[in-house]
This record gives sequence, C-alpha cells and structure tokens, in this order.
Amino acid sequence: MKIFLAQQNYHIGNFDKNQEKIIEAIQIAKSKNADLIVFSEMSICGYPARDFLDFKDFIDKCFESIDNIKEYADTIGVIVGAPDINPVREGKNLFNAAFFLYEKEIKGIAHKTCLPTYDVFDENRYFEPAYNWDTIEFKGKNIALTVCEDIWNLGDNPLYRVCPMDILMQRQPDFMINISASPFDYTHDEDRKATIKSNVLKYKIPLIYCNAVGSQTEIIFDGDSLVFDKDANLCCQLPQFKEELKEIILNDDGTVDAPVIEPAAAVPGLIFEPLYFTPELNISQVYEAIILGIKDYFSKMGFSKAIIGSSGGIDSAVTIALACEALGKENVRAILMPSEYSSSHSVDDAEQLSKNLENPYDIIPIKNIYEEFLDGLKPVFNNLPFGVAEENIQARTRGNLLMAIANKFGYILLNTSNKSELAVGYGTLYGDMAGGLGVLGDCYKLQVYELAKYINSKKETTPAGRQVIPGNIITKAPSAELRPDQKDSDSLPPYEILDKILYQYIERVQGPKEIKSLGFDAALVDRILKLVNRNEYKRNQFCPIIRVSPKAFGTGRRLPIVGNYLD
Amino acid sequence: MKIFLAQQNYHIGNFDKNQEKIIEAIQIAKSKNADLIVFSEMSICGYPARDFLDFKDFIDKCFESIDNIKEYADTIGVIVGAPDINPVREGKNLFNAAFFLYEKEIKGIAHKTCLPTYDVFDENRYFEPAYNWDTIEFKGKNIALTVCEDIWNLGDNPLYRVCPMDILMQRQPDFMINISASPFDYTHDEDRKATIKSNVLKYKIPLIYCNAVGSQTEIIFDGDSLVFDKDANLCCQLPQFKEELKEIILNDDGTVDAPVIEPAAAVPGLIFEPLYFTPELNISQVYEAIILGIKDYFSKMGFSKAIIGSSGGIDSAVTIALACEALGKENVRAILMPSEYSSSHSVDDAEQLSKNLENPYDIIPIKNIYEEFLDGLKPVFNNLPFGVAEENIQARTRGNLLMAIANKFGYILLNTSNKSELAVGYGTLYGDMAGGLGVLGDCYKLQVYELAKYINSKKETTPAGRQVIPGNIITKAPSAELRPDQKDSDSLPPYEILDKILYQYIERVQGPKEIKSLGFDAALVDRILKLVNRNEYKRNQFCPIIRVSPKAFGTGRRLPIVGNYLD
Repeated sequence: MKIFLAQQNYHIGNFDKNQEKIIEAIQIAKSKNADLIVFSEMSICGYPARDFLDFKDFIDKCFESIDNIKEYADTIGVIVGAPDINPVREGKNLFNAAFFLYEKEIKGIAHKTCLPTYDVFDENRYFEPAYNWDTIEFKGKNIALTVCEDIWNLGDNPLYRVCPMDILMQRQPDFMINISASPFDYTHDEDRKATIKSNVLKYKIPLIYCNAVGSQTEIIFDGDSLVFDKDANLCCQLPQFKEELKEIILNDDGTVDAPVIEPAAAVPGLIFEPLYFTPELNISQVYEAIILGIKDYFSKMGFSKAIIGSSGGIDSAVTIALACEALGKENVRAILMPSEYSSSHSVDDAEQLSKNLENPYDIIPIKNIYEEFLDGLKPVFNNLPFGVAEENIQARTRGNLLMAIANKFGYILLNTSNKSELAVGYGTLYGDMAGGLGVLGDCYKLQVYELAKYINSKKETTPAGRQVIPGNIITKAPSAELRPDQKDSDSLPPYEILDKILYQYIERVQGPKEIKSLGFDAALVDRILKLVNRNEYKRNQFCPIIRVSPKAFGTGRRLPIVGNYLD
Repeated sequence: MKIFLAQQNYHIGNFDKNQEKIIEAIQIAKSKNADLIVFSEMSICGYPARDFLDFKDFIDKCFESIDNIKEYADTIGVIVGAPDINPVREGKNLFNAAFFLYEKEIKGIAHKTCLPTYDVFDENRYFEPAYNWDTIEFKGKNIALTVCEDIWNLGDNPLYRVCPMDILMQRQPDFMINISASPFDYTHDEDRKATIKSNVLKYKIPLIYCNAVGSQTEIIFDGDSLVFDKDANLCCQLPQFKEELKEIILNDDGTVDAPVIEPAAAVPGLIFEPLYFTPELNISQVYEAIILGIKDYFSKMGFSKAIIGSSGGIDSAVTIALACEALGKENVRAILMPSEYSSSHSVDDAEQLSKNLENPYDIIPIKNIYEEFLDGLKPVFNNLPFGVAEENIQARTRGNLLMAIANKFGYILLNTSNKSELAVGYGTLYGDMAGGLGVLGDCYKLQVYELAKYINSKKETTPAGRQVIPGNIITKAPSAELRPDQKDSDSLPPYEILDKILYQYIERVQGPKEIKSLGFDAALVDRILKLVNRNEYKRNQFCPIIRVSPKAFGTGRRLPIVGNYLD
C-alpha cells in the first residue's frame, strides 16, 4: 500500500488556506498513484482552536471543508482531523476526530479517547471522550486509526482509565495510523519516539504517525512524523520544524520498503526519566524552534518586520540575532536607548552587534525624557531618595519609544526577557516586559548564553571577520543598568544556582523540601520560591512566550495571582 | 439535627489562615451544641488553587490541615472540602473531595463526579471523576454528600454522562448536603436557586447547600447558601457577598425549623433561558460584586491603597467611586494628567469628582514629557503626520506616571477600561490598559453608565449637596481626548448598538449569521467581530478583570492569538 504522510503547517481558523494546502497534497499523492494520504490532528481548522470550537459557525465551517475535500478523495483514501458532533444528549457536544474519506464519502470516523487536559492542553474543555471504537476497512486492510494521546496511555503512571488501542486490537487490525498535534519541548523528542515504538512492541503491527508542524502563538509543533514496521524498526522519520510530504510503501507482511533508520534494538523502550537541568540541552533544537516560532508568529499575524530594544546585553543580542535569521536582517530594527546609567561599552557593543548582523539600528538617548518625567513628578515625589520607581521610569520610557516606533511603521516589538528574570520578577512591567512575543522567555539565562555560543558557532564570522555576537557581550557581567554600577548579582544569586533552583520548581514541580534536599541553601530556596509566586501578577500580563521547555510560563502554567502559597 | 452552615472567604494556599477560620467556626457551633457544621468546597486550601495542586507539598499541607481540624471534630460532625488522593494507578492522581470528620476521624469521603471544565473551570486538569459512590451514616441519618457540580447535571443538555445523585438515591438518603465554590455572574443567581430546587423536587429530600464567598483574583464567589426542606420550600438563604455562620434545625420528618422564605411554588423550576442584553441587569449585584472584588484583591495581595488615572470621563469616575467605597476614600489617589488635547471640562469634572468623594488627587500635566518624546523621536519619525503613534505616546506617558507613583508609594494601579473598548481594542497597551486589576473590564459601556446612576442613587448627595458623580461626566459624549475634538463615535458605532452585538458574540457565543439574523447591519457585524478577534493579542496582556458576566475576558475565555477566524 502506497501511503503519503503530509506533515503540514496550518493556520487556526483559516479554513480556505488549510483546505487549499490539503487538496494540493492530495493532488500530488494522486498523481503518484497513492492509496492513502494522512494529515495531522485537526488539520481542517488548526490546533489548538480553543474557544472557537464553541461557535456553531466554526464547526459548520469544519464540515463544509470536509465536504469540499471529500470530492478529491475519490480513488485515494484521505485521513484528516476535525471536530465531530456527539449525537448523544449527555456529555460534551463534540469529539476530537479523525475522518476517513474515500470514494467521495466519509467511510469512517475515529474519536479520540484520551483527552490531554494538562500543561497547554484543554481538550476536556471541548470534547467528550470516545465511547465507541472500531477499526476501518480499506482496500482489504483493517486499520486501527487513533488520534494523538490515544497511543500515549502506556507506562508506569497512565493518565487515563481506558486504553483505546487495547480495545481496537480485538478487531485484529493490520496496522495503526495515529494523527497528532504533539508539541515540541527540549526534553520531548526521545520520549515521543519511545512512546510510539512502545506501541509497536506491544501490538506487533506497523504504525504510521503523522504529526503537525508549525507554531501556533506560543506552542511549537515540530513535525518529526515517524513510521515503524511491524518489528519496531524505525523506517521513516520526517524532519523537525519543516513541512514535508513523504511517500512510503507499507507491504502486506508489515514491512516497509525503506532502509531501516534505527533498528528496533537501538531505539530505547519507554523512558520517562526526569531530566536535570543542563543549559546545553538540545540547544540546536531550541534554536530551530525559536526561529520557527518567530517566523510563524509574524506570518500568521500578517506582519513582516520586528523592532527590538538593543541594550548591549546578552538577551537583546541573542534576540536580535534570532530575529535576523527568522525575518531577514533588513526586517529587524534595533533601537539603542542609552541613559546616564548606561556604560559606554553597552552602546559600543550594541552598535557592533548590528554592524555584524547588518541590520538597521537607531540611537535615541532617553536622558531628556527621563528628566522631564522626574520634573513632572517632583511635586509628588518631593525629595524622596532614588529607588525602584526611578529605575522603572527609564525602562518604561524605553517601552514607550519602542511601541511608538512600532505603531508608526507597523513593527511587532519582540521582547527579550529571559526565563530566569521572568521567574523572579526582575523586570519592569510595560518597560522591558513590553512586546508582542517573548523570544527567550522560556530559556533560562544560562541557556541564553548557550544560544549565543551556538549562534556564533553556526555562522562564525561576519564578512568583516568577526563573530556575530561580540565576545564582550558574552563575557561581561549582566546588568540592567538602571542605577549606577548596578549588576544582576546585586539582587540575585549567580545564575548557575538560580537557574537550577528554578528548573526544579518550575519544570520538575518540586516543592521546597525536595529542592532543599538536593543541597541548595534553604533560605535561598525559600526566597526564590517566594519571588516566583509573588510575581505571578507580572507574568500574567506578559506576552506569549515561545515554548521550548516542558513547562513554560503561559497557557501551560496556571497559578492563582492572589494565592499565598510559599509566600 | 442542628446544622451550621459556614459561608466563609478563604485565601488560596494560606493554610494557617483558612484553618484558623474553620476551627473558629467549629468552636462556635460546638458552643451551641450543633450536631454538624458544613464548610464549602476546597475550604482547606481555597478554590481555585490551580497548578498549586500539582505540588506534592501543597497536597501534603492539605492533609496536615485536615489532621489538625479533625481534633476539633470530636462531638460534632465537620464537612470540609479538600483534594484527595486517587489510589488507583490509572487516571489523574487527585479527586476533588468532601471530607466528613467526626470523633476525631475521617468517617467518610465523597469524591466529585461532574468536573466542570469550561469557562473559568479547569477541574479535569487536576482531578479524576469519582467512580465509587456511597452515602454517609451519621447519628442515625443517611446523608447524600456531594460536591458542587454533582447536583448540576440536570436539564435539557446535561454536560456529563453520569448523574451521581441518581446513584446515591439507591442508598435511600435522608437528606442531601452539597458543598460548593460556585461563582457569581449577573445572570446566575436565579439559575442556581432553580437548579438546587430541581434536585429537591426530583429526589424529595431536604438539601443543604453551602457555597464559598469571596473574590479569588478575578472570580467572585457570592455565597448565597441555601436550605430547602423536603417539599422544596426555601427555608434559609444566606446573604450574597458576605461571610456568615448560620444555624438551622433539620427535623426528622424533613422539615426545617424556620419560616419559609419562598414556598416551593414560588421558586421557578429549571430555566436556562438565554438572557438578552439589558444594561440594567442586576446592577446592584454587579456593584456589590465589584466592591468585594476590589476589597479582596487588595487584602489578599497585601495592599491597602489604590491609584487611578482620572480623566474626567465616565469610566475613571465610576472606578474611583467604587474604589473609595471598597478601600476608603483616604486610600484612593486620583491623578489628573491633562494634555493639550484635554478639554477644560475634563479637568474640572475630574476635580469635582474627587472633591465630592473627598479622596486625594494630584494634577500632573503631560505636555512637556510628551513633547520631549516627540523631540527624541524626530530623527526616526521625520515629518510623518500625527497618528495613532502620537496618541499612544500620550496614553503611555500617563501609564508611566501612574506606575511610577504606584512604585514609589506602594499603590496598586486600578484599571478603568470597560468591556466594550477592551472587546474592540479601543485602548493603548501599557497606556490606559495598564494596571493590576480591571475594575470595569467585564461591564459594557452602557452598564458603566448604569453603575454611575446607581452610585448616584445610593448616595445621592455629598455633604456639599451634590451628586457623587457630576452630571456632566454622565451626560457628555465619551472621548479618549488624544487628538483634537476626538469622540468615541468617530471610530465606533453607538454603544447602544455596539454593546448588543458584543453581548451576542461574547456572552451568547453567536456567530455572524445568527447575529445578523437579529437585524443588525451585516457589514457592521463583520467589522465588529473582526475587531474583537484581531485584538486578542491586546487582551492577552491585560490584567485580571473582576468577573461579573457569564463570559468575561480572562481565564474563562481562551482564544488563539494567531487565529484567523472571521478575520
């Protein structure tokens, strides 16, 4: 059987564009005499469509699109993902479904059973879990068709009380097809391969796994679609972070006509070992994910140009370099806004960076505006000493300048805050926390340095023979430069310690006792956890953050603002 | 049987304080020889605790607290709400549970079956639905104990496939107790009474319903605990928006020793009719809810003083009046920040308002700062004509001034944006959209006028014999005053039309076809819906909004930012 995997990037709610993409792939597959083509989960409307699913009009449009696509599914079987209606009175009104189209008809529908409702996922908000299961007959074969999480209910701590593949196996299927929208994180890659392989080892039939690709606001879907033969040899692996249309031949005996990429023995079984924090973790994947995240955010929002505040520090340098790669250097405008507290090297370093990257930049000193603010506030502030208020005025003046230029010329302001500072609230709301998209907000400070080194190693020299990110930006001590001789280390522990404590608390969901038992200073742990919880109100107003870790600030981490835990 | 209902206001994660409150009520009930005292859902840790529930340490603290409270449950039965551990390997690790404490032991635990996962609720994210049900024997009585939503699975379109009360009735209980954390909205009051009554009509045994009170960030729990006798007469109704400890006597024959407040016939059966928008809808309740929302946000965040930008317009006037009522006039500082585009009456009206309310205010003109911004931007802006960028600079200058004063003196900035403008994006990010709490963000513009009239009617004259909110603020045409002679009506349809279209789209989740069929202009509907969807990115960075409607912007409404639906 000749099967095409269509690993595509969809735009949520853009039915015309998604449909066009799907039909185009069907046409290509048909021209190559394919038997079947497989698209990813919710390919019709994009994933996650969130509360758009509450609109009858939105669901109607999904069915219209399926009707249109059906006409192209004449001699070829087509599997697409879309919501389906629950005909039963009790329960939610929708299913998350895979539609099997053939001979211009809907020949079968598989409903998703295991509905992820954790982290960034809210599927129980919209869908009823499947309560009927059946295989699909197609050209003499019996197919076990499932949706994403339905093949994830394995291992030591299964999240669900039903295992749909166990039920489907009673119908003796010839092979499995799973359509997914499974997002990237820098610990997830091997988990996924292991999980999918575990199904093949358990059920002893081939598995075709088609995943979505593309970024949806903050969530990166990385593709990486896979095919395992009946012996659990990995025979096909589509690229990460890219669209691809791939043909495979699945033989009647459960083998695949393709050289084995990884033999069954080489791919480890199910391992969900907790990963301890090392800043180097898959840094090249993190880089690719962020590039895709920037690219898709701009194109899906209908923008092409970014503006970024350039401080001469590591965070803005890495953000600018990433933006230049994603959008083209001519589309990235850096704004240097020195104050009286900026060191001379800050401006030099920031200028050198943009000279290396060849992106446009401007210098707008903030001294006069800042002084005018102080002047206006004099009757209220009287002669109170310099403090956080004065620091924040500077940061917010910069935010105002950046947004003004963005508004004037149609830029999106990219935010440069890293995860370490967002965690402890070391940033100014409406100041350096302003922006439409958080580029580094899911990377700890040490990871930002790793990204800088990776960027320099990728493109070692500019035409002028220099490293892209000037060495001085990487080696100097981090500073907000909002008061004389300020250093991050005045207020925060070294990032080598801070990042590890944060990783335990945020990614690994460890409480104070467990973190202290790892040998960290008890008072420091208490102080850091309190800072994280206290600053929920700030992060709550932050822009979407490109998600690269297993636990990003944003839709995947939901804490009460008025809570008083560890506080 | 003498039963106490403890309608209390908890602080999420503040175990000591919640425990103290619970023990204090138990002591009072014991001193009056009560048999039983009932606390609300998740009384131990506060509701909703969200992802704090993912921390083992948090769950341990819940059990420690139950252990402590148990010691006081010697001669009295005590029902408290807390998470419980799921002993089964498959499924989520926790239940949402009601613990029955007596003779210093946990005598029974009821797990919640129907887990709300819609609007602001995420219970499937944390909890496994109950799969075992039993009644609880206590002093010769058989009690059907349930948690909140478990008695809501009635009516035409039940959300769940299981009805736990149907199962519990097989054990022939003598009466029902339901512990809840059921939030307020301005359409919900009668629904709730009708739903609870419908259970009594169906099962023909008395029902004791204990609801939480208090605001948790954006969600207002309004109390309104109820007792129905076996004949569905309403015999006891606790106040809305207030804590109360109430004694009732439930007789062996299912009657209650209390005068009937509403006879069975007077309380309507189950009605879930969609409500059409009228700005007057329960405006006194909206007022009380907002007052509680402000009060609790400040006290739970550990603040006492608010700062508010005072423009002379209706939104800031109503916000300042509400804040004065909630926090005391001496704790509300108004800042008037006129620009060259401010009309003279704006400053006069804003001053008059603060004179009427007797709250402190300052005037800080923004002209010089604004001009310094324009000066700094001249090399970048060249001589491009005045536009949105210049308007936003003014709004963001005001945001910066307000935040600077807030930072200096420890105020929380209260935001004055109304729901109509938040919906269509008629506001400046980091400018008038700045603030820690959205006071009016769930009230349409027409409702803000109703609030103003209500405030004036409540406290008709100040000591000087004037209405609190000056008449001119109510009668003049709304304007942002960011360019010469600007009026809201330059960019937006009349609020009488806009608000109704928005209500259909947001609260009633109607699509473009349905809204047009109500007679609104088709092009206008398309334009408005597009504006709402396009401005998701702005609202995503907005502060929490005190929720008073059935569909507020915030955790209860989740839309993709990069979506392209109706856009």
